Amino acid sequence: METHSHEYYMQQALRQARIAFDADEVPIGAVVVWDQKIIARGYNQVELLKDPTAHAEMIALTAAFNQLGSKYLMDATLYVTIEPCLMCCGALYWSKVGQVVFGGTDVKNGYKKTTGTQHPFHPKTKIIEGILAEECIQLMKDFFSKKR
Amino acid sequence: METHSHEYYMQQALRQARIAFDADEVPIGAVVVWDQKIIARGYNQVELLKDPTAHAEMIALTAAFNQLGSKYLMDATLYVTIEPCLMCCGALYWSKVGQVVFGGTDVKNGYKKTTGTQHPFHPKTKIIEGILAEECIQLMKDFFSKKR
Repeated sequence: METHSHEYYMQQALRQARIAFDADEVPIGAVVVWDQKIIARGYNQVELLKDPTAHAEMIALTAAFNQLGSKYLMDATLYVTIEPCLMCCGALYWSKVGQVVFGGTDVKNGYKKTTGTQHPFHPKTKIIEGILAEECIQLMKDFFSKKR
Repeated sequence: METHSHEYYMQQALRQARIAFDADEVPIGAVVVWDQKIIARGYNQVELLKDPTAHAEMIALTAAFNQLGSKYLMDATLYVTIEPCLMCCGALYWSKVGQVVFGGTDVKNGYKKTTGTQHPFHPKTKIIEGILAEECIQLMKDFFSKKR
């Protein structure tokens, strides 16, 4: 039984994205929710770690595996502010995560670009998109306009 | 100028795969070569870390970024014993790695299953497959027959 809305948890992912923004990283954030609780958080740390795989989702997933001591997340939901890329999709596939909820779409790097209509997640993973999409995308726009 | 053959480096990746085999992990290994030298190694550690994203390629890539202090690997080659999955492809895409050389194909989990003919790597990444394929696949077969 969920007492909090998708918007509530996406706000928590947005908090992570804002930490990235303040650290001059592409502002994407993620949280993993299990049994109504946030068990893991992550924000993009590509520049800090000089590691292009250090995406918010990868960091949140690895934290969640550590937290639960399990390599599967069937009963968990991952919230992320922006549509996952192919790598993060692959990681979410392996985790067998129950649900993926994302905010804004990413025409350039999102998974749909490569996989098209083919569902690259685990067959049982439920996908929900568009939660707080405007806020999530606005933060990205603010970041990239600051860069120019 | 490469003084060593692809087979030589794939043998090094196979050594990593055998470490995984001995640790009761799915036996896949990888090395990253830069300027003719092996700068990073990795083997599958999914069970040890209870992290389904701890694939040989991911570990070798992260080690390579750390080693070079760079988030791009344009001049490097990643050797891996088995066709990368979608997640590892995505990671290799972000790394802009110069070359990916793999041994055996993986009909079940390899990237081609989802992406089909679409090339999911960076446009400049060169792909070579089939190096020591029989040995790479035999190690996998030995592992899974031991499991049954």
